[in-house]
Amino acid sequence: MQRSAFALGLPAIFPLAFSKPTEPNPNIPQGATILFQGDSITDAGRNRGAYYANNSRGMGGGYAFLAGARLLADNPGANLRIYNRGISGHKVFQLANRWEEDCLNLSPDVLSILIGVNDFWHTLSHSYKGTVKEYEADFRALLDRTMTAIPDVRLIICEPFAVEGGSAINDAWFPAFNAYRAAARTIAQEFKAEFIPYHGIFADALQSAPVSYWCPDGVHPSLAGAQLMADKWLETFGKLKWE
Amino acid sequence: MQRSAFALGLPAIFPLAFSKPTEPNPNIPQGATILFQGDSITDAGRNRGAYYANNSRGMGGGYAFLAGARLLADNPGANLRIYNRGISGHKVFQLANRWEEDCLNLSPDVLSILIGVNDFWHTLSHSYKGTVKEYEADFRALLDRTMTAIPDVRLIICEPFAVEGGSAINDAWFPAFNAYRAAARTIAQEFKAEFIPYHGIFADALQSAPVSYWCPDGVHPSLAGAQLMADKWLETFGKLKWE
Repeated sequence: MQRSAFALGLPAIFPLAFSKPTEPNPNIPQGATILFQGDSITDAGRNRGAYYANNSRGMGGGYAFLAGARLLADNPGANLRIYNRGISGHKVFQLANRWEEDCLNLSPDVLSILIGVNDFWHTLSHSYKGTVKEYEADFRALLDRTMTAIPDVRLIICEPFAVEGGSAINDAWFPAFNAYRAAARTIAQEFKAEFIPYHGIFADALQSAPVSYWCPDGVHPSLAGAQLMADKWLETFGKLKWE
Repeated sequence: MQRSAFALGLPAIFPLAFSKPTEPNPNIPQGATILFQGDSITDAGRNRGAYYANNSRGMGGGYAFLAGARLLADNPGANLRIYNRGISGHKVFQLANRWEEDCLNLSPDVLSILIGVNDFWHTLSHSYKGTVKEYEADFRALLDRTMTAIPDVRLIICEPFAVEGGSAINDAWFPAFNAYRAAARTIAQEFKAEFIPYHGIFADALQSAPVSYWCPDGVHPSLAGAQLMADKWLETFGKLKWE
């Protein structure tokens, strides 16, 4: 217990919350396959050999693990199959390179994609030469290919985010990075995807705790930040339309 | 999507739930330290080098990760410090061997312990010679020592469990294993701990999905089983009394 809280005259007792308001229950087809795709934020240290659906080691230690666990525990009769295929460091063109095996062959009913931070970041840190126009064009081509192969898939597009004050974020990020956020939003609208505005979600979270609490380097969420992401993801998942 | 569901005449649409009813908000001291102790179920593949509080890699891929993430995300101003110090394969005497470093030095405000399945299992699988009397006596001594060192600690004792039908569970387990469950419950009562009856919780869960869904080998929970555990843990955490 932090005794200094008393010395500073701060409240000794903090009202503790630990659950979320009940969400409306959507409907989902029996046996639906849900695929998380992206970069290190999705990967989150997953065991890539743990290939099969619903394997906790294969889900990593981030928002995909948290969202998947919640869906599975609350829907034991739904026969859901949940996969994480995020790979650390990837940009959108690298998703395209492995899309046949890591997306199309899994034939997802729900495809969630969080990609873009490396498309920008690596221009600063890895001498990557890609532009935001290429990011947007590659993302569009990836989704055109996806919708041709699996036209019934429901899409969740996650906004790439960078949390100001994080140790990896400097003045070079803004406003340049905002164009990547805008491109992801444009793509989501074009493909009638559900869009999760994570950049603003993290910015808002800074009102209750510092960047070190939610996302220390500004790119990779903490445990608290992963839960924040999972909660918004589940809320968004609930908005998907099913006939 | 599992097309066979249609062929079998099963419902194509499953009502999906993904959140829990709101729990009452307890109060907890600002800056409280919460420690998860136990064996492989708690360890869940954690990175033991990720020693500091609230580190997602250090929380493993089980119920401690899930419960910790929920507490941290929902209480950003509470300055909680959450540790996982479960170690795979451990029995209660092995907790005692590392108790100074892995419990007392952390000075937890909340101590959660799940221990006992190996105290029984290893008598079958590892020629371990310990008895249930030793388990109970060692557990009592461990908590006497704990309460002497940190008398204000709140205790959560988790019932050791074995899920019938799991691949590691055979006829040798019952009724012998029930004595370990009873010993843990006795200890919880003696020390006025909150007790989580996980054995029955998992048995009840079999009504909605088979053992392979919740706990394939009967000892180590799946992703769904870990969330089931975390939900009950959080519910129990909410019952702790704070002045």
